[in-house]
Amino acid sequence: MRNYEMLFPFWSKLSDAEKELIEQTTYIETYNKGMLMHRTEDSCKGLMTVLTGQLRTYILSEEGREVTLFRVNAEEVCVLSASCLLDAITFDVLIEATEDTEVLVVPSAVLNQVMQQNPYVELFLYKAATEKFSDVMWTMQQILFLKIDQRVAQFLWDEMIQKNSMTLSITHDEIARYIGSAREVVTKVLKYMVKENVLELKRGTIIILDKEKLRGYM
Amino acid sequence: MRNYEMLFPFWSKLSDAEKELIEQTTYIETYNKGMLMHRTEDSCKGLMTVLTGQLRTYILSEEGREVTLFRVNAEEVCVLSASCLLDAITFDVLIEATEDTEVLVVPSAVLNQVMQQNPYVELFLYKAATEKFSDVMWTMQQILFLKIDQRVAQFLWDEMIQKNSMTLSITHDEIARYIGSAREVVTKVLKYMVKENVLELKRGTIIILDKEKLRGYM
Repeated sequence: MRNYEMLFPFWSKLSDAEKELIEQTTYIETYNKGMLMHRTEDSCKGLMTVLTGQLRTYILSEEGREVTLFRVNAEEVCVLSASCLLDAITFDVLIEATEDTEVLVVPSAVLNQVMQQNPYVELFLYKAATEKFSDVMWTMQQILFLKIDQRVAQFLWDEMIQKNSMTLSITHDEIARYIGSAREVVTKVLKYMVKENVLELKRGTIIILDKEKLRGYM
Repeated sequence: MRNYEMLFPFWSKLSDAEKELIEQTTYIETYNKGMLMHRTEDSCKGLMTVLTGQLRTYILSEEGREVTLFRVNAEEVCVLSASCLLDAITFDVLIEATEDTEVLVVPSAVLNQVMQQNPYVELFLYKAATEKFSDVMWTMQQILFLKIDQRVAQFLWDEMIQKNSMTLSITHDEIARYIGSAREVVTKVLKYMVKENVLELKRGTIIILDKEKLRGYM
């Protein structure tokens, strides 16, 4: 028995029939690390809630430059996966699994039916969208107003906290994609930090030697 | 008698008492061109709906660089003016009147009371916020992915359409602020377009000589 009450704050506002409909139609999908789960052209699958793993939402320029908008962690909904049901969302994004990820899918047709009957479901979705709006504003301010060394330092710091490790398995290219910059620029910043004894670089690995100095760049 | 039904799509979902409360407490405020109507530190006035004129929402870096997020035109709500009542909005912005502007204010306390009783009001607000999320995504993609000459050309084109005139009264500094760039950069682009016979520059005025060529930059 899944804990719908915890995943969906609107659960207590649903009728018994609505609850049963959702319980009987939701299903689990698994995405391997690196898989794309949502493309502009795809039909709209439904509302995805991350059970384990992590999703990364990003946009792509014509030249292939990526900018990460936000990540969706376990027990969070990926509201943009249901954007086809939300008139107010008129943009599209790419969604990738950053690790092996299990998601719970409420199919579009079911979600749509319940939404028509119950304003709390739509409210939940738009509220979730607005939370991501806040995340994107934060990202945008970072991109616009922070210098590149600050962005790299902030990224490494966040990774260190999240992974609870001073040894990070990540390539320069991945960092560049996460912070919306170019690999060459990231490499330059990392090499500078090596010279300053903040980091050590090994193939595919970055070792943080001096947390305090790293913090000094932020 | 104001046409609340047109301004607020949730109007028909309100009880008579809620309608009366809003009718008796909303008031009109007037802002002159250039006035700031909302600052981070200010108390939260309430939900503002533009009756005439236009508001511009922007963010400001520590060095004073501005980036326009979106504009709010007549009959639109400026949902960020009520952001203190919306938990999911965790960022703040500056709001300026770009012309003499009249707004209808539903005071925070009233809005909050009605919101508690009625999910349709909160849904309206979060839906409006999500629409602005879409606008901001558009702005962000422009900033990230368009080259500066494209952004200047796009801006001049939009102004020409909006003002229905090929003579635009606007300074280089204003253009820079609208498109989130620096004045020096805008001046360089404009001078290049003068050399190409696309524009003519006069003090505080830009005259578009060749619409087709301008479009060619977009």
